[in-house]
Amino acid sequence: MQVQVISSVNEASSAQFVHKTAVIIDVLRATSSIITALATGSSGVVPVETVMEARAAQQEGDLLCGERFCKKIPGFDLGNSPDELLLNAVKDRRVILTTTNGTRAIHKSTKADYVLVAALLNASACAKAALELRRDVVILCAGSHDEFAIEDGLCAGLLLSRMQALCSAPLEIDDFGLAMLSLYQDRATDIKETIRSGATGKRLIKLGMARDIEICSEVDTYTVVPRLQGSGDLLVCSC
Amino acid sequence: MQVQVISSVNEASSAQFVHKTAVIIDVLRATSSIITALATGSSGVVPVETVMEARAAQQEGDLLCGERFCKKIPGFDLGNSPDELLLNAVKDRRVILTTTNGTRAIHKSTKADYVLVAALLNASACAKAALELRRDVVILCAGSHDEFAIEDGLCAGLLLSRMQALCSAPLEIDDFGLAMLSLYQDRATDIKETIRSGATGKRLIKLGMARDIEICSEVDTYTVVPRLQGSGDLLVCSC
Repeated sequence: MQVQVISSVNEASSAQFVHKTAVIIDVLRATSSIITALATGSSGVVPVETVMEARAAQQEGDLLCGERFCKKIPGFDLGNSPDELLLNAVKDRRVILTTTNGTRAIHKSTKADYVLVAALLNASACAKAALELRRDVVILCAGSHDEFAIEDGLCAGLLLSRMQALCSAPLEIDDFGLAMLSLYQDRATDIKETIRSGATGKRLIKLGMARDIEICSEVDTYTVVPRLQGSGDLLVCSC
Repeated sequence: MQVQVISSVNEASSAQFVHKTAVIIDVLRATSSIITALATGSSGVVPVETVMEARAAQQEGDLLCGERFCKKIPGFDLGNSPDELLLNAVKDRRVILTTTNGTRAIHKSTKADYVLVAALLNASACAKAALELRRDVVILCAGSHDEFAIEDGLCAGLLLSRMQALCSAPLEIDDFGLAMLSLYQDRATDIKETIRSGATGKRLIKLGMARDIEICSEVDTYTVVPRLQGSGDLLVCSC
C-alpha cells in the first residue's frame, strides 16, 4: 500500500485523490471539531466552503458553526471549537461548518473513493479504518494560511506510525510522509508543547482559546471515524 | 532572527527572498557538487538553467557538467556528481553546471541580499556564515521532481540545529522548519540510511550511483561556503 502525505491544502490537486482513500487532517481545529461533534451525538456535519452556503444549508434545529481567522463568524451559533461543541447540546442535531482550511480540504478531496476525517483525537481508529478500505492512501494536512501547520504534520506522523504497526506488509511512504513520521517520533512525548509552539497554536493562545489546544492535543479520545457521504451536498457521518 | 524553510523549489516565489539571506539545499546532488568543486580548487561554478545556456557559457578550460533525470547530459564532460568531480581535475577550472532542480533553486533566489549554497558536506560552516550575515534567513530545499526530498529536509534540520547552537538569542523558526528540526533530531545517527530510503536515493542506487550517496551523506567534510555573485551571469565562489 502506498501512502502519500500532502503538506497543505494549497499543494493538493483533485486528481491526486482518484481511486484513493483520502484522510483529511486539520487538528486546529476543523477535523477535531467534526470528530467531537459526531462523538457527542451530532446527527451529521455538513462542511461548506462559504458563509453564504452555510446560511443556505441551515435547517431548523441545525447548529451554524464556523470561523474566519480563528474567530467565530458573526451571527453563527458557535465557532469552530471543540471546546464550545462540548459545552453545547449537539445531540441529534446537524452541524453546518465552514472554516478557513479544513472544509476547503474536504471539498478538494471529493474525487477519492473514500474520504475520512482524522485528528489526534481519533488517530488509531482512523489508521485502522484507512487500512481496512484497501486503497492507496493520500493524507492531506490542511495547514493554515496556505502554509504547512506543525500540528497537522504531527498527526500525519502519528497516523503513519499506527498504520505501520497494524499493517503486515511494509507501507510505501513518500519522502514527506517519512519526514512526518520522524516529526512524530521526535515529539511523541511532547505533543501539547509542540502544538503550542506552532503558528496556529500561538495565535489561538493569543485569542484566549488555549482550551481548544488542550482538547485537540489529546490522542485517541474517540473511536469515531467520520466519513464523507454524497457528492453534491456533502455530509460527514460516523459510519 | 526569523528562519523560514521552503519545502521545494516549486513552493518558492522570488519575492520571499527580498532583504533575506537565502540558503539553497540540494543534497542529491547539485549543492553537494558545487561545494565539492570549490573545495577541491575549482575557480568558480556557473549555475545555468538550460543545456543551451551551459554550452553558450563554456569557455576554454571550463568543465561542462550536468544532469537530466539523474543522468549525465550527452556530450557533457561530467554529470552532476561529487564522485566524478573528485576523480577529475577541477583545480583552477570553472565548472558550468545545469541540473534539474538545484540550479533552478539558485536562480529563484537571486533577489536575496545573499545566496549561500549548503549541503550536509558544509552544514556547520554554512550555519555560521548565515548567522554572521545578520539577515532573516530563508532555507530553500530544492527537492526533486517538484516534490519535497527527505535529504534536503534533513540538511535543513541540521542547519537549524547548528544555528540554534551558535545563536545566543532564540531563533524564530516557522512550522515547516520546526518539523525539519525534528526530522534531523530523529534521524541524526542514521543519515545515510535515511537518504537511501528517500525517492532520489532509491533512484540513484538503481542507476548505479550509490557512491554519490556515500559522499553526500558525510557531514562537515568541508568548511567552504559557496556564495552567489553577480546578477546577470551568476557565479558561485567561495568567499
